[in-house]
Amino acid sequence: MTYESRITVRGYELDSFGHVNNAVFLNYCEEAQWQILRKKNLYDYFFRNSLILVVAGVEIRYIKEARVFDELVVRTRLKREAPYLVFHHVIRHATTDEIIARARIKTVLVDGERTPHDVPDSFVE
Amino acid sequence: MTYESRITVRGYELDSFGHVNNAVFLNYCEEAQWQILRKKNLYDYFFRNSLILVVAGVEIRYIKEARVFDELVVRTRLKREAPYLVFHHVIRHATTDEIIARARIKTVLVDGERTPHDVPDSFVE
Amino acid sequence: MTYESRITVRGYELDSFGHVNNAVFLNYCEEAQWQILRKKNLYDYFFRNSLILVVAGVEIRYIKEARVFDELVVRTRLKREAPYLVFHHVIRHATTDEIIARARIKTVLVDGERTPHDVPDSFVE
Amino acid sequence: MTYESRITVRGYELDSFGHVNNAVFLNYCEEAQWQILRKKNLYDYFFRNSLILVVAGVEIRYIKEARVFDELVVRTRLKREAPYLVFHHVIRHATTDEIIARARIKTVLVDGERTPHDVPDSFVE
Repeated sequence: MTYESRITVRGYELDSFGHVNNAVFLNYCEEAQWQILRKKNLYDYFFRNSLILVVAGVEIRYIKEARVFDELVVRTRLKREAPYLVFHHVIRHATTDEIIARARIKTVLVDGERTPHDVPDSFVE
Repeated sequence: MTYESRITVRGYELDSFGHVNNAVFLNYCEEAQWQILRKKNLYDYFFRNSLILVVAGVEIRYIKEARVFDELVVRTRLKREAPYLVFHHVIRHATTDEIIARARIKTVLVDGERTPHDVPDSFVE
Repeated sequence: MTYESRITVRGYELDSFGHVNNAVFLNYCEEAQWQILRKKNLYDYFFRNSLILVVAGVEIRYIKEARVFDELVVRTRLKREAPYLVFHHVIRHATTDEIIARARIKTVLVDGERTPHDVPDSFVE
Repeated sequence: MTYESRITVRGYELDSFGHVNNAVFLNYCEEAQWQILRKKNLYDYFFRNSLILVVAGVEIRYIKEARVFDELVVRTRLKREAPYLVFHHVIRHATTDEIIARARIKTVLVDGERTPHDVPDSFVE
């Protein structure tokens, strides 16, 4: 299953080169992940069980620059690669459909003592 | 040659999980890169020639969490892998020497029209 | 005339206290200002004339905390108080209509040499 | 008593106008405040008692632009104006001593239920 979230580039997200700063794309990916947690009612489940989804690794390729007011579509697929939950994001320009960036975010669900926990099945199905 | 820069974690860099947010580590890497540009007097050279060093790709692994007031050491090696200039960063805790994160930032030097330019030899030697 | 823009709180905008960090509200105000520039076609006008709207002063009161996924409405009025252009923002919770913050952002339009320029009449009318 | 903290402008803190973004100065002020909490051993005290210092209001005037690599000195005085604890920051350029910005940050110490608490005397003396 593919999730979709939309993000419009904000003026303060540009750096001194006039384009979206590379680190900001990780914010966009994180936002897409929060949206998915929310749609699946996992945000409350995690909160009640003091679980957090921590990022263990990121691979991201920047293909085209994004600029102010650009509307972006983030399409996300989840894969369980135990003990990791991996988010595959493709960020496209909403109107031209050009790929802006591709990211692979490897996360692990942990409790307060940083012990890994199983990701609920409902999360990946 | 290895470059070294130091960064102390700031309170506002923590996210709601109480640790440094994953995207902030890309800020730390970028800061290390700016420091290297500066030491090599390349910042002025780039500025005068309207060249910018854009990030083409990032691979980063998060090994340990960083928390407020932690002092971090970023050790950086540069490699030319034409047409890319690649920064290899190892971020360690300054007192315990534990590795916090490892990153590989692939950059390319471009002009205003986004045409790739050769990186001056002095940059990599 | 009152402008309106909408912002949904993103997870990475929370700080370690679990609420939107105080500095992030200035990002929200700036975003509202960019939206207004855009609606009035002033972004292109400023860009072509190398003009930028710099912030000279801010007064902001934080009335209620904002949390992840909160939908906010930013209502903005502009006043010319020569040589300043002042944005008055009221940020409310979209569903409860509660006031989250009030801000007064004093800006001045300057060119590359930081000489103040008149704000086009069409901007304030 | 006046506290002093030092901050060097980082490249990623610049916005598309090539200067430090207005919201980033609130980060600098917050950082100065965390440093003061730390020097006074209040960070642990607050943490143990589940108290947080929330920002109730900000007034800031931007006097000169700050640019990449600028070294800044933040000098801070605290005043108790019950129920508020107010931080008065003056941010200067470290070498020229020029004033970059002046800020007044009004905070209130609250517990988990957002009930205001007295600020320990040792904090203001």
